[in-house]
Amino acid sequence: MIPGDVLKHIQENNDNRVKELIDFLSIPSVSASKASTGDMRRAAEWLLEETELLGFKGTIVETPGHPVVYAELCPYSDAPTLLIYGHYDVQPPDPLDEWHSRPFDPVIQNNAIYARGATDDKGQLFTHLNALEAILAVKGQLPLNVKLVFEGEEEVGSDNFEHFVLGHREDLKADFLIVSDGEKYAKDLPAICYGLRGLVYMQLEITGPRFDIHSGLYGGAVANPAHALTWILRSLRDDRGKVLIPGFYDGVRDLAQWERKEMASLPFDEAEMKKYLDVPQLVPEEGYTAQESMRARPTLDVNGIWGGYQGEGSKTIIPATAGAKVSMRLVPDQNPDTVMEQFESYVRSIAPEGVHVRIIRHHGAEPLIVERQSPAMAVAEKAIEYGFDRKPVLIREGGSIGAVMTMKKHLGIDDIILAGWGDPDDGLHSPNEHFSLENLYRGTLASAALIYGLAQVKKTK
Amino acid sequence: MIPGDVLKHIQENNDNRVKELIDFLSIPSVSASKASTGDMRRAAEWLLEETELLGFKGTIVETPGHPVVYAELCPYSDAPTLLIYGHYDVQPPDPLDEWHSRPFDPVIQNNAIYARGATDDKGQLFTHLNALEAILAVKGQLPLNVKLVFEGEEEVGSDNFEHFVLGHREDLKADFLIVSDGEKYAKDLPAICYGLRGLVYMQLEITGPRFDIHSGLYGGAVANPAHALTWILRSLRDDRGKVLIPGFYDGVRDLAQWERKEMASLPFDEAEMKKYLDVPQLVPEEGYTAQESMRARPTLDVNGIWGGYQGEGSKTIIPATAGAKVSMRLVPDQNPDTVMEQFESYVRSIAPEGVHVRIIRHHGAEPLIVERQSPAMAVAEKAIEYGFDRKPVLIREGGSIGAVMTMKKHLGIDDIILAGWGDPDDGLHSPNEHFSLENLYRGTLASAALIYGLAQVKKTK
Repeated sequence: MIPGDVLKHIQENNDNRVKELIDFLSIPSVSASKASTGDMRRAAEWLLEETELLGFKGTIVETPGHPVVYAELCPYSDAPTLLIYGHYDVQPPDPLDEWHSRPFDPVIQNNAIYARGATDDKGQLFTHLNALEAILAVKGQLPLNVKLVFEGEEEVGSDNFEHFVLGHREDLKADFLIVSDGEKYAKDLPAICYGLRGLVYMQLEITGPRFDIHSGLYGGAVANPAHALTWILRSLRDDRGKVLIPGFYDGVRDLAQWERKEMASLPFDEAEMKKYLDVPQLVPEEGYTAQESMRARPTLDVNGIWGGYQGEGSKTIIPATAGAKVSMRLVPDQNPDTVMEQFESYVRSIAPEGVHVRIIRHHGAEPLIVERQSPAMAVAEKAIEYGFDRKPVLIREGGSIGAVMTMKKHLGIDDIILAGWGDPDDGLHSPNEHFSLENLYRGTLASAALIYGLAQVKKTK
Repeated sequence: MIPGDVLKHIQENNDNRVKELIDFLSIPSVSASKASTGDMRRAAEWLLEETELLGFKGTIVETPGHPVVYAELCPYSDAPTLLIYGHYDVQPPDPLDEWHSRPFDPVIQNNAIYARGATDDKGQLFTHLNALEAILAVKGQLPLNVKLVFEGEEEVGSDNFEHFVLGHREDLKADFLIVSDGEKYAKDLPAICYGLRGLVYMQLEITGPRFDIHSGLYGGAVANPAHALTWILRSLRDDRGKVLIPGFYDGVRDLAQWERKEMASLPFDEAEMKKYLDVPQLVPEEGYTAQESMRARPTLDVNGIWGGYQGEGSKTIIPATAGAKVSMRLVPDQNPDTVMEQFESYVRSIAPEGVHVRIIRHHGAEPLIVERQSPAMAVAEKAIEYGFDRKPVLIREGGSIGAVMTMKKHLGIDDIILAGWGDPDDGLHSPNEHFSLENLYRGTLASAALIYGLAQVKKTK
């Protein structure tokens, strides 16, 4: 699907490009950490320089949070326009002591690059830069107009991305959108994702006595914030995965029979997953398979919890405060704002006496479903088969990419290709995240094939 | 109750003694911290030197944990013997940022010494050394035999103290036992404590996936250890203070009517306590007053809880592990070993699927009731009235001093005087712990009066 000389260039230039990626991965661009502001800027500048070297006209757009990098190479008035989205921010690397190498000191081991962000999303984003570099190096021009947008707040909810998109509607106008921020279905089975879950991320802070107090002197008469917290958290979900917040399921579109059937036909080795995660068993939602529960059903998870004495030995106190981070994954047609309100009013209604409850809204993202029958989707299937030597499956994914929903809504782009190159065991959001050199290479091929393929699709508007 | 020249010495020597105490408080003898081993030793040596300067014959007795300091001055074969117990270890000082001064850099402010251990128990222990110092300085001899025992593991459950006592039964033999490790009933109302709650301290560790995993990719099908933890903790106690562990109340001796009446007659300002703690309301056990719930009813408290992401912003993970420290206060005739077993078997029975639960036993202490009608108790009432200018009330306290139960059981000492000199708002186990200079002085007077008074009580054995 791609010219022989471009393929040859990708093959021969691979080692240099790996070095470039390692350079990019060395920047600790952790968007959640206030201490990383300088590194976030460095990562944005790194991308700007990279795109300018390719011949793109780039700019760093400020936001109230971390900046967005925007670059374009759009010489044609009669060719379609492709928008490629990626994010240069990464998840916090902790727990640090579980990493075998340092998260921002990338190493190559077992034919993979180990670093925070290796797959999510610096490595995947980089495959598209690779493809563009090869085409431009060999041909001197692209077969269609290309716009690049790389944000720095994907891992913290893309709070400022919507405002950026609204302010740059004309710049961002495009026919197709490619996002490589997911993963393949399995190591040997590429996938195109046509559905994403949405997200609502909340924080609870329970306050009791104004300092930690002696549990002997006061225990029995003073409400314990840690206990109050467990009461609330426990009341949010039952032990079979059902969320107990009134109205939570109101917007949920039932899974269609054909979709359940298709999902059931995908290879899924439960024993393998249990072994990989080292869990005694999977606990899907009652009435649904594990696949359905992970990919297409709404959930609620405690992402963090704290309060009182966490040190060694014992300390006999009633803690002054306790807190938790709680996220909910949403499916069509749940609305993040509605769910946030349902969450708040339910928590207030069940909050135990004797403590104060503060509820913080971190962020929300709408769930997404993309049309599966389209010329662009047909091109994507072929391009990915070219890159990975296997026809991709069409799947829904459990993660959330709020920015995609934002672009669909405000830019009116319906031809969205969500296709990740990573493997399911790459350790996204976990210690020892890595991206295999093979996926880096194959992802680059797939990206180049997508670029050539989409250039042939008739413009839709 | 004490000779005029001894009183005069106490008054005139007060400033010097305050300096001595500050020296003692500067040693960060935190028994719960493994890093404090050297400081624990220094504190023990400080005490040994102090008692030897008084003319006692002292020794540091090794244990598998922190050492015990034992000293005696027993010249008489025909006088009764008084054993004085104290502990030189202190609670961990955290949360450090809530201290106005450094916890191991004692300062005098508002006529009080601020430091971790100022009251609990270094300051109170020190009043007895003060009294002994005064009597010996002025008279050259004590009116009865005195034995001193200072342990270093009270705040971590006195695990090695029982073994020490069993190995030193003859050394420790005594007629009376004085323990000043509590507090007055109120600022202007001294108290003698005739009952203590026991303690069982447990830790739960829940393990799920072998590392933190992406809540989008896996949420819905993989059990969340933090959620499992809240499920377990929530099931341990209801929202009205009732412990839900089967059999937990089996050993509980009902409060007698006279005891409830007496407790109700004690001054208690609920509004004042709410204001001091800054809590919206007290939440006593259903069917009991706040006083009864804090002093004479068994309880269960979460002392600490942790798991997953505790940093700023958001991280979308299912945590690999979560844990909690849970303590239960026991009343007569509950047995710590029985309660530990009930706790373990209940937790195992309610543990959710998909996670591993590890239960760690930290320590236990038996509850205690002391005979209120005895010549020693009569002396104690007078001595404390002498020191504090007010007749003490007899109360039960909510805290636990496992060592007292151990000495009662193995040394056969029934005349136990539990009387603390601190105020209820001294901040025991909390930031900004302090001990007023007035209580230091009055406690010294009360101790001297106890020594002279008990010397007149006929030996019971």
